[in-house]
Amino acid sequence: MIYIQRRERFSAAHQLYNPNWTEAQNDEVFGMCANKNFHGHNFALIVTVKGEINPETGFVMNLVDLKRIIQEHVTSKLDHKNLNVDVDFMRGKMASTEVLAVEIWNILESKIADYNATLHCVRLEETENNFVEYYG
Amino acid sequence: MIYIQRRERFSAAHQLYNPNWTEAQNDEVFGMCANKNFHGHNFALIVTVKGEINPETGFVMNLVDLKRIIQEHVTSKLDHKNLNVDVDFMRGKMASTEVLAVEIWNILESKIADYNATLHCVRLEETENNFVEYYG
Amino acid sequence: MIYIQRRERFSAAHQLYNPNWTEAQNDEVFGMCANKNFHGHNFALIVTVKGEINPETGFVMNLVDLKRIIQEHVTSKLDHKNLNVDVDFMRGKMASTEVLAVEIWNILESKIADYNATLHCVRLEETENNFVEYYG
Amino acid sequence: MIYIQRRERFSAAHQLYNPNWTEAQNDEVFGMCANKNFHGHNFALIVTVKGEINPETGFVMNLVDLKRIIQEHVTSKLDHKNLNVDVDFMRGKMASTEVLAVEIWNILESKIADYNATLHCVRLEETENNFVEYYG
Amino acid sequence: MIYIQRRERFSAAHQLYNPNWTEAQNDEVFGMCANKNFHGHNFALIVTVKGEINPETGFVMNLVDLKRIIQEHVTSKLDHKNLNVDVDFMRGKMASTEVLAVEIWNILESKIADYNATLHCVRLEETENNFVEYYG
Amino acid sequence: MIYIQRRERFSAAHQLYNPNWTEAQNDEVFGMCANKNFHGHNFALIVTVKGEINPETGFVMNLVDLKRIIQEHVTSKLDHKNLNVDVDFMRGKMASTEVLAVEIWNILESKIADYNATLHCVRLEETENNFVEYYG
Repeated sequence: MIYIQRRERFSAAHQLYNPNWTEAQNDEVFGMCANKNFHGHNFALIVTVKGEINPETGFVMNLVDLKRIIQEHVTSKLDHKNLNVDVDFMRGKMASTEVLAVEIWNILESKIADYNATLHCVRLEETENNFVEYYG
Repeated sequence: MIYIQRRERFSAAHQLYNPNWTEAQNDEVFGMCANKNFHGHNFALIVTVKGEINPETGFVMNLVDLKRIIQEHVTSKLDHKNLNVDVDFMRGKMASTEVLAVEIWNILESKIADYNATLHCVRLEETENNFVEYYG
Repeated sequence: MIYIQRRERFSAAHQLYNPNWTEAQNDEVFGMCANKNFHGHNFALIVTVKGEINPETGFVMNLVDLKRIIQEHVTSKLDHKNLNVDVDFMRGKMASTEVLAVEIWNILESKIADYNATLHCVRLEETENNFVEYYG
Repeated sequence: MIYIQRRERFSAAHQLYNPNWTEAQNDEVFGMCANKNFHGHNFALIVTVKGEINPETGFVMNLVDLKRIIQEHVTSKLDHKNLNVDVDFMRGKMASTEVLAVEIWNILESKIADYNATLHCVRLEETENNFVEYYG
Repeated sequence: MIYIQRRERFSAAHQLYNPNWTEAQNDEVFGMCANKNFHGHNFALIVTVKGEINPETGFVMNLVDLKRIIQEHVTSKLDHKNLNVDVDFMRGKMASTEVLAVEIWNILESKIADYNATLHCVRLEETENNFVEYYG
Repeated sequence: MIYIQRRERFSAAHQLYNPNWTEAQNDEVFGMCANKNFHGHNFALIVTVKGEINPETGFVMNLVDLKRIIQEHVTSKLDHKNLNVDVDFMRGKMASTEVLAVEIWNILESKIADYNATLHCVRLEETENNFVEYYG
């Protein structure tokens, strides 16, 4: 068993806001992240896949395929988008990095299984200081 | 003459959009950067100041002062904000990185002159691949 | 279960020195790290916390709280300090990165438990080539 | 139990090519990585070792020893070399990052056991976007 | 006048070798860089362009165009190639980073002039420690 | 004319302290940087050299020579040292990054001239946010 990782990037706007709360509650919990006009980040997404090495290729899975899957199903839907408004799989959900990591896992898990490999980790880097990892 | 540099960071949303153009023109020129719901970035701002070394301190200018000036007059007005909507000194201007760099220069130039030093360069890093530098 | 990480930084002096050994022994084992006048590093501390996502906030734990805990109880006591002389929780201990990581774990574990989350890992980066991770 | 990590670097040429396949098959699977004249990378190798902290030194294992082992047995044989041609332990094997990580593990495992510590992970970074991790 | 920069990357093999010299001379001057089986690097290319800000767009030049020019005329000819063998504009020249930077300048200068902007600098990063800059 | 750059690193302790001042004055100006027990940093030193490309080698100057000069005359005297106590060329001077950059320039200028090249810039990075550049 060996692990391969692919990093992809996307730039998105978002806002942390719970519609069931008052504005004062949102401001208290989310502070400047609740700005109603949005702010944004350059996100880095690192996807880890595990599997056996195919002796014919030396690969767990061709990184060209992994890159294509991530771009087609995830980053093309997030890059230069607003996470609260533009992204179908985030609709009605809190636009936190934690929730986004779980949703990305849910999208990628079966796509990667199609390649005889197993999704192991979805890592999101929101800034150079804040990161999230989800292992299913 | 020696140069000192201070890096500060801010996370902001923006949109590239010329209100004098049709949506089709905006889409053609700005592509996905024209998304009307905004996208965002982690910006890094590197401010370069030049001057003589003060023999009493070994400093051109105390970096504590430079940091405070940048935070008070620039990054506190940009961090977790929307460059098109929330920022007084960007009102009515294109929210490009080039224009933002010029406006930051205009704010900082006289503040730094108060410290017997000279603003030399405003550098903005929008992503890990796109940068702007302005020297006045 | 999901993992969040916060990076904080501190700059400190230290020396690797075992007072029960002769100087020759210290020099042999620790080499230039034994310099009696100290040397120093920019340390990066990455704290990983695990827990369930709170559906109200989208958070495992508010990063504002995690940042405050780390700064109040750890980095404010280490930044611009001498690890061998100035730091109460390092007194009488070897000032190695390994030992420092364990001591930081001991400080943070209960503080994070107060927030309904669990400390998972303390990572210290001493240079761009040398790192330590402690999982309790 | 605590984990220490050492990063070393090497610059090497390689080619992904299966000699049992036709050129067309190689081109289809490996694309531009199959270029018969080779391409190359700056690889970063991060070796993780685990063990107990020695109370006399504060160390799991002296990083001077870990660095020397890695350089003597691994990176000196890879740096400024061609992975397909110059490296004895890669002879007859696919020159993929996955296979290289496994071979490096096989070399280092017993060398590190000599120091009363245990090899935990071999991580190879091929570009800023592609990584492999092997845990034995 | 303002400066914009675009970073692109390519991975290539090369060898430092002067065919007018003996092997002993090549080994003496170029050391392990003369390895006849090649070695390689992940190169980063940073292109700086200067010009006036167009008030309609906020741009010196659309980075989409700059990116396309660099990829079409430069990095597509270098990525996953051998600088000594595969690259028409390096034929018969020393495959050093200095010479490569000059050749890239010669290719880009007129292409960028077509966009009412001026090429200012070609920067090549060969490793994390070795860089070249050419200003024409 | 083309520019080459070499990055070297050193880890050192220091203190900002003017012996002609009272402790209160030192604390007021230098804050926590005045800690009498010292603190420290991982410094990065980037040396820029300019010259013509030698057509025989493709080099301005062999980076092996530049690296050796920097290590022999500068970083070996600074690495794992205390800038206030251990470094002959800093004796009696303020241990600021600005002053250190000037002293490094003074050491390197003539050494590099011996290689038919010209020292252009000494850059010191003290943390990921604070930098100094000196051009003579």
